[in-house]
Amino acid sequence: MEQHAVTQTKPIQLRGKPIAGGTLPVICTPLVGRTRDAVLSEVDAVLPKQPDVLEWRADYFEALGDTARVIATARSIRERAGATPVLFTRRSSSEGGETITIAEPQVVELYAAICASGLIDLVDYESSNPADNFQRVRAASREHGVALIGSYHNFQATPAADALVAKFALAHKLEADIAKVAVMPKSPSDVLTLLSATYEASETLPIPLISMSMGAYGSVSRMVGAVFGSALTFAVGKSSSAPGQIPIEELRTVLATVRRATGTR
Amino acid sequence: MEQHAVTQTKPIQLRGKPIAGGTLPVICTPLVGRTRDAVLSEVDAVLPKQPDVLEWRADYFEALGDTARVIATARSIRERAGATPVLFTRRSSSEGGETITIAEPQVVELYAAICASGLIDLVDYESSNPADNFQRVRAASREHGVALIGSYHNFQATPAADALVAKFALAHKLEADIAKVAVMPKSPSDVLTLLSATYEASETLPIPLISMSMGAYGSVSRMVGAVFGSALTFAVGKSSSAPGQIPIEELRTVLATVRRATGTR
Repeated sequence: MEQHAVTQTKPIQLRGKPIAGGTLPVICTPLVGRTRDAVLSEVDAVLPKQPDVLEWRADYFEALGDTARVIATARSIRERAGATPVLFTRRSSSEGGETITIAEPQVVELYAAICASGLIDLVDYESSNPADNFQRVRAASREHGVALIGSYHNFQATPAADALVAKFALAHKLEADIAKVAVMPKSPSDVLTLLSATYEASETLPIPLISMSMGAYGSVSRMVGAVFGSALTFAVGKSSSAPGQIPIEELRTVLATVRRATGTR
Repeated sequence: MEQHAVTQTKPIQLRGKPIAGGTLPVICTPLVGRTRDAVLSEVDAVLPKQPDVLEWRADYFEALGDTARVIATARSIRERAGATPVLFTRRSSSEGGETITIAEPQVVELYAAICASGLIDLVDYESSNPADNFQRVRAASREHGVALIGSYHNFQATPAADALVAKFALAHKLEADIAKVAVMPKSPSDVLTLLSATYEASETLPIPLISMSMGAYGSVSRMVGAVFGSALTFAVGKSSSAPGQIPIEELRTVLATVRRATGTR
């Protein structure tokens, strides 16, 4: 009578190969330093903890407007990170990121330059950005073999499940390789709404998904999300980038138990 | 913007005091030996792992029809268990238990005798039993200060959320002190149905709840159920009594992370 677990969770692929051999979920740790030295010291502190992906949250980087310095810092991250994939993200302030000094057209050109640099494996760009901008980021990332995450964040609330499924679908429609949804719960039942929408999207969309419910309650979605379709979870390596993130060592232990108990990878 | 976690999960009380100081959830390990010696050897193996509650699954006990031997074995369990609360359960075969040789009226008299013995802290009786029988078990347990769990199990499927909420409500209507629902998922979304129904029942019913989704997927409900209203989770001490149970040491580690991350007790 026991179910044999089959998960529909699709692993994130880079150049045709799943990250970390297809482990679900992979663990991503954010880098939030404001200076090159701060970012690199985070890399050095985090790498021994063996994250599967590093996310450089470039909206924290004070020299974001200086493309040469961004590229130089990306090169230094890459030199240290070795084979660990690096995700480049400018989270917009309207979706919970830091305030930056450059306008969106410059951000798009920065994404194009980062993609062309060959130093980065994935980029994250919000699906809510003007379609022209998104298409430009899509074209540049595709040209240079960089995977594109189309993302949606809501730090205030959790929209209804249908609306969340639509956000995953929008990213797919915009030809993102991966769709991400991160929302804030106001009650434990909002956490179930996020998981339920993720599972529904995993049944209907052909691309890998990333999702999380933020904050205290939501932290459980960071532990069990892969059972419901999420391929990647964020953990604290040195610094947190969103509420509810768990230290990587603790999260890895929990994920091992979840995988063993559910029979997933 | 981060939520301060407030859980509606109500701890199980014994004689006016919450088990394990109100820790949520408490961990219960089953005893499934067929003989007195087998049961006592399980107790000896399990107690060093410090479960919060021991459940004696008496439907496995081959001398269930001999009340004196049941009471004598309960006494030996109690002597070993010390302050650890003991739950006495005859799971009916129609709800996933072992086949037994005595008829329901004898079972009810056995429950009355066990309650009168003063050796047991809680009893579990299915809400689906004839109302007269349930009332007799309720009266005997109340008279002797034994907490009564009114339970519902479905090893085939997960009914709709409304039906599950009705099962919790039925146990409350029958004046059980605690309502329990355990169901089998056919997909990950059934796990969310069980958690959602538990949360809804926790909002409307004044009594503590116990719930779990069984099997591989369902095992995650054994880890995060307390965030959604479940006050007790079953773990494997020496032997499993239902599919999806996790070894107690592993579960305790996960629960500590869940509590820390969600800010619950």
